[in-house]
Amino acid sequence: MCEAPGVDVAVIGLGLIGGSVLRALAGSGHTVWGFDTDPATRATARTAAAQAPPAARWRVAGEFGDAVAGAGLVVIAVPLPAVPEVLDRLVAAGYAGLVTDVTSVKEPVHALVADRLHWPHARLAGFVGGHPMTGRETSGFPAAAADLFAGHPWALCLEPDTGLADWLAVAELVTRLAGRVVPTTAAEHDRAVAAVSHVPHLLAAALAATVADDPLALTLAAGSFRDGTRVAGSPPELTATICAGNPTAVAPALAAVTAALAGATAALAAPDPIPALRAWLSPGAVARAGWPPRPGSRLELPANPGALLRLGRSGGWVIAVAPGRRTVTAVRPAASGPR
Amino acid sequence: MCEAPGVDVAVIGLGLIGGSVLRALAGSGHTVWGFDTDPATRATARTAAAQAPPAARWRVAGEFGDAVAGAGLVVIAVPLPAVPEVLDRLVAAGYAGLVTDVTSVKEPVHALVADRLHWPHARLAGFVGGHPMTGRETSGFPAAAADLFAGHPWALCLEPDTGLADWLAVAELVTRLAGRVVPTTAAEHDRAVAAVSHVPHLLAAALAATVADDPLALTLAAGSFRDGTRVAGSPPELTATICAGNPTAVAPALAAVTAALAGATAALAAPDPIPALRAWLSPGAVARAGWPPRPGSRLELPANPGALLRLGRSGGWVIAVAPGRRTVTAVRPAASGPR
Repeated sequence: MCEAPGVDVAVIGLGLIGGSVLRALAGSGHTVWGFDTDPATRATARTAAAQAPPAARWRVAGEFGDAVAGAGLVVIAVPLPAVPEVLDRLVAAGYAGLVTDVTSVKEPVHALVADRLHWPHARLAGFVGGHPMTGRETSGFPAAAADLFAGHPWALCLEPDTGLADWLAVAELVTRLAGRVVPTTAAEHDRAVAAVSHVPHLLAAALAATVADDPLALTLAAGSFRDGTRVAGSPPELTATICAGNPTAVAPALAAVTAALAGATAALAAPDPIPALRAWLSPGAVARAGWPPRPGSRLELPANPGALLRLGRSGGWVIAVAPGRRTVTAVRPAASGPR
Repeated sequence: MCEAPGVDVAVIGLGLIGGSVLRALAGSGHTVWGFDTDPATRATARTAAAQAPPAARWRVAGEFGDAVAGAGLVVIAVPLPAVPEVLDRLVAAGYAGLVTDVTSVKEPVHALVADRLHWPHARLAGFVGGHPMTGRETSGFPAAAADLFAGHPWALCLEPDTGLADWLAVAELVTRLAGRVVPTTAAEHDRAVAAVSHVPHLLAAALAATVADDPLALTLAAGSFRDGTRVAGSPPELTATICAGNPTAVAPALAAVTAALAGATAALAAPDPIPALRAWLSPGAVARAGWPPRPGSRLELPANPGALLRLGRSGGWVIAVAPGRRTVTAVRPAASGPR
């Protein structure tokens, strides 16, 4: 396990998320090394470091091995298809510390780590899968910001094979970046993000496609089309990679939405469609009126897997790990309902 | 037909749209009367009028009949369920001028006008169905603004039974409010707004409903959920009324989206899902990247139904009606494609 602060951290991949992790950790007192396979990105990150306050500077390694040589924690911040190569490089570099990642699906990464690093039986100290739930319209290192994670959920996976001390060490690091640590499992995370992130991309694409050849409709389209199709503007390659990377969860989540839509079709055909539609619409309206969840009461919880996973399943999050790491400060969402 | 400016206009219903029409027409030199069945709304509108510049003041009638007594044009700006009562009141008041409306579905209003006013064989001068494609999160007279329509599409229906002179008179009025007049038919309008407005409401509600009982998912939800469900927060009664008011168009538009989603399900199950999904996602991505349509070249068009309806079907709009109303200045959308 690592003892933050003081542990040296290596961030591999300096896009929006990796660059923001780099900036945020450097700003909170860690010695941080960054690496990216793209020389231009490395140069950009080096120039930015020179312009940061001396106490908040990071270093950019020219070689992968130099970035991880002294690290106690490696943050893998590359897209899913590039993860296997990073894992192979960690093995080649003889890395024996803690590893976390920020990829948007967690079961495939967990499987890759087990496969490539022969974890949990290798000399790797430990692996904790993570996923900061934040993003911007912009991407790349120039868009990175130290405060990108503040107040946003950051899922951290607590599997049967996860070391609790490792999980708490990474959780403590994330809380220092003001992230809301959501304890979950890879399977539960992947199911949840399929419903709230991957399927919305598919709905947006379907909606945009049905009027692609209808100039009148495109001219008359206003706010509900703008919002309902916004993420259809994402690069198809990226959306395809993310959805295909979550194969066991996306199809059922999409089936749940299409089943719900069958209810709308039935309501439209009902003898008295207005009350039928109103009844069909109400659960979604209530859920949306109560979203996003507001922070409710704070509580101290024992730092054990059962209590932490119950917290995550109830929609709660961790905001601090107590010194000694025997308890955490948690927040439960306030009772939902229209505001 | 009415001869604007100079024609007295009565606006019935002083919510966001009606109030904005009132403000905008008063500001462009018309004598305008407003009426609302709610006394508190009338009082609010009266107080606001007293605070407007003297040249841009409107008057608020205490009785329906007083509002329409001297009017050459009545703008019906009430929700669809209240339209029949307004039509009956127009008959009772002996109104014989031009009528337009701002309701979000056009075939049902056209049918109501034919039924209640016995139009086109009654003494009513004419009817032109309209729909300004604008809105705000807020509603009611206090949110009304004279510039609400500037740069936004305003569909105006040109049916076989619509007088061209009446259509051009209303179009001229709308262009004075800086609206983009989109010539269309009630059927084509209703089909288009089913796809770009009504179905997005159903998709948003379905998406929100599928995670209504999943606190973990609601906590992890971020930008794509926020945008994809925004309109699910609309009052179910309102959405139900609007969708049920467009019965012939909403069900087929919803079926088109669910058919498209079946393609996503198939792509997810393909032997090589990434290229399959990418191919499935591309048409929506292209359509979204080219939206909203940018104004392209301006052109003068003869003011005849064929030319006007072709303009609307090609995604174009009218920005000015020439003096004498024999031609219009039109804008075609620029060639679409990613920007």
